[in-house]
Amino acid sequence: MNFSGKDIIAIEDFSKEEIVYILNKVDEIKEKKNILNGKLMASLFFEPSTRTRLSFEAAMKKLGGHVIGFSDWKDSSVMKGEDLIDTIKVVDGYADVIVIRHPQEGSAKIAAEVANNPVINGGDGTNQHPTQTFLDLYTILKTKGTLENLNIGFLGDLKYGRTVHSLTYALKDFNTKMFFISPESLKMPTELINKIKKYSECYECTDIFDVVDKLDILYATRIQKERFMFEDDFKRVQGTYKLDEEFLKKARKDIKIMHPLPRVGEIKHELDFSENAIYFQQAHNGVPVRMALLSLVLGKA
Amino acid sequence: MNFSGKDIIAIEDFSKEEIVYILNKVDEIKEKKNILNGKLMASLFFEPSTRTRLSFEAAMKKLGGHVIGFSDWKDSSVMKGEDLIDTIKVVDGYADVIVIRHPQEGSAKIAAEVANNPVINGGDGTNQHPTQTFLDLYTILKTKGTLENLNIGFLGDLKYGRTVHSLTYALKDFNTKMFFISPESLKMPTELINKIKKYSECYECTDIFDVVDKLDILYATRIQKERFMFEDDFKRVQGTYKLDEEFLKKARKDIKIMHPLPRVGEIKHELDFSENAIYFQQAHNGVPVRMALLSLVLGKA
Amino acid sequence: MNFSGKDIIAIEDFSKEEIVYILNKVDEIKEKKNILNGKLMASLFFEPSTRTRLSFEAAMKKLGGHVIGFSDWKDSSVMKGEDLIDTIKVVDGYADVIVIRHPQEGSAKIAAEVANNPVINGGDGTNQHPTQTFLDLYTILKTKGTLENLNIGFLGDLKYGRTVHSLTYALKDFNTKMFFISPESLKMPTELINKIKKYSECYECTDIFDVVDKLDILYATRIQKERFMFEDDFKRVQGTYKLDEEFLKKARKDIKIMHPLPRVGEIKHELDFSENAIYFQQAHNGVPVRMALLSLVLGKA
Repeated sequence: MNFSGKDIIAIEDFSKEEIVYILNKVDEIKEKKNILNGKLMASLFFEPSTRTRLSFEAAMKKLGGHVIGFSDWKDSSVMKGEDLIDTIKVVDGYADVIVIRHPQEGSAKIAAEVANNPVINGGDGTNQHPTQTFLDLYTILKTKGTLENLNIGFLGDLKYGRTVHSLTYALKDFNTKMFFISPESLKMPTELINKIKKYSECYECTDIFDVVDKLDILYATRIQKERFMFEDDFKRVQGTYKLDEEFLKKARKDIKIMHPLPRVGEIKHELDFSENAIYFQQAHNGVPVRMALLSLVLGKA
Repeated sequence: MNFSGKDIIAIEDFSKEEIVYILNKVDEIKEKKNILNGKLMASLFFEPSTRTRLSFEAAMKKLGGHVIGFSDWKDSSVMKGEDLIDTIKVVDGYADVIVIRHPQEGSAKIAAEVANNPVINGGDGTNQHPTQTFLDLYTILKTKGTLENLNIGFLGDLKYGRTVHSLTYALKDFNTKMFFISPESLKMPTELINKIKKYSECYECTDIFDVVDKLDILYATRIQKERFMFEDDFKRVQGTYKLDEEFLKKARKDIKIMHPLPRVGEIKHELDFSENAIYFQQAHNGVPVRMALLSLVLGKA
Repeated sequence: MNFSGKDIIAIEDFSKEEIVYILNKVDEIKEKKNILNGKLMASLFFEPSTRTRLSFEAAMKKLGGHVIGFSDWKDSSVMKGEDLIDTIKVVDGYADVIVIRHPQEGSAKIAAEVANNPVINGGDGTNQHPTQTFLDLYTILKTKGTLENLNIGFLGDLKYGRTVHSLTYALKDFNTKMFFISPESLKMPTELINKIKKYSECYECTDIFDVVDKLDILYATRIQKERFMFEDDFKRVQGTYKLDEEFLKKARKDIKIMHPLPRVGEIKHELDFSENAIYFQQAHNGVPVRMALLSLVLGKA
């Protein structure tokens, strides 16, 4: 398989074979030094996303590459349309690979269309964030030794959660049993759940304790206040959806808890030191996974 | 010729021989790697200018050098006078070369006076932006094979256009025929045109179609709404000064269209794919030209 | 002595022997190249501090290391508590050493407690800024050849001056005679002066000319308008506490004037060219001193 010159825009663009191939490359590439010597990455963050940006830049630099870019777009108006295209075309002549984070859905695809060099989507609005999905998959693979035949729970805001939507799609050929646990108002979109049902066994519920003893992995997500009309509703949900030591006692001994971070109270800090908590490892995995992706699209893997 | 330790503040400081020497160095230097190993550039952007900053930083890094700096000055008050001098003196001890962009005319010169290391002006207000002129000249040289005896049109806002003023000056010893095409209200300043007439044949007009068939190069510039008292006047001018396929049909087959970017509608996107359009190449040339300038002032060319 | 993996949070954590050891390492380490090859520093500036940030980044890069980070925290709310801890834990997995600047007292200590990698305090509010103290000590050592038995004056705002408080503490075992010169309203805190008196001879006065002929070093500090209730009081103090050529005539021939910068009029620019003025050298020393500190905590010195 050859990803040299390819763009990484959406996880949907990758087959099971490609996903497995890429994930298997990570451990090999993360030990390499200087394979991206002389290569230049443009890190174009049209909105701030500190952790994503820092892990991309760390990935590039650990392999000997260089970085130019910006961490925020200062202008009051979002750069879009023709202006965005001109900017991408100019930067495309400066750098060997472009990482773009932009608040507008579809912006990364547009960038990929006009750039000659490979473009990696670092998140385009509520749409796609494929490198997050790769690092989620890599984390599951490393902790369980396999991606096949797992029981995975998704907890929290499943309506708006971009990471959950992408991850469930990416798992479609791995025979995953999926458990969706959320308040009624934040359930997985019907359209999406109908799609998933075609390839995965699905269970939906509102109470985590109905399914906790079945889960190999629990993928928790942030529940944002802004999603609720009334603060009371938010507080009630927040009180129900929190992971603490009580929760762990009822779960499988080897359950692993993931979270894309930042959290806002869904996971109590008392769990941080438990072996079941792997959300910091998950965040750290952003670096080796992005090292692999950068090397692959730059033809140096 | 030896530029080691020299400042680059204004294009007026360079003779024809020096300009030619520098431009001829570009192709040699852009292939070098690591000649600026261990060298540190301070990139002091007291106002944002993303493309200029990124191309300077790309230039430094492609040659193996390092960069420290800032992309904007957060304080509400512009740093000037004694404060600016102290800042330059401090940073001068950190780095081997300073690139300064500052909204105030003359700031780069002041920086050059107090710094021991070479200072490169990345734009000081409406005054000077010499590396832009070098990349414009390099672009003309590469596309036409020579700087001598060309017919060059300048289109748009010629009153305030810093890039045009500097470029016309830089061309003074190359026997250029110059055509200035602008609305009456945005004509070249009389003082300047009188100076140019001493060394170049000059034609002024308001209608591009009066001269289009004579041009080897058309250098278009942005016409900004803010220059007009009445929006109607702006719209009328904008309607007249636009380059599209109709325009190309009437021009010489081998005309080359340049623009310092960003554009705001002066050049239709339909032209981007034409061989006559070289404004993206022009932007890309910012990197090799700045590689050459950095190497020269650092004594590594 | 081995500082590998150690945090640098407060100057109080270092013994005389350790301070001397570190300062003696500076000249050796500043000549080294590439000893931090492949090492990654996270530069987390939750508030802007351009000179401190640039000198840390210059230090890392001069030794061949890489830098990721941010220069300001854009959010309206200061990141603290659990959010700060999560951020540090995530970044700790990306980088080999963390430099943190944060407006809240105690934040660097918290970061050091949760990070596995070494943490260097780049200033936590009004509390500590240990690398500034190291560079002040190094400057004294280089200019006087010793830290022992010196007469050092401290001038200006001694009530709020973090740098003076730390420096006087660091000098406690060097048999320093200390002269504190300030307006009544900005005297050294009584508690602190009582502590210092246990190990150093101390003199307090309001008039610099009472002691000027005794000083080997005069460490001046900025007097900020905001410290005064009435502008008249500020102006009166400002008129008294200024160093100019008149002052120099009355001082010892070999007096050296230091200042942590930025200044706001306490030192006239006419003194900048005098051999007695060493405040720019002092600022420049930030780079080699931070080179030494980074190498030591990374186990590469």
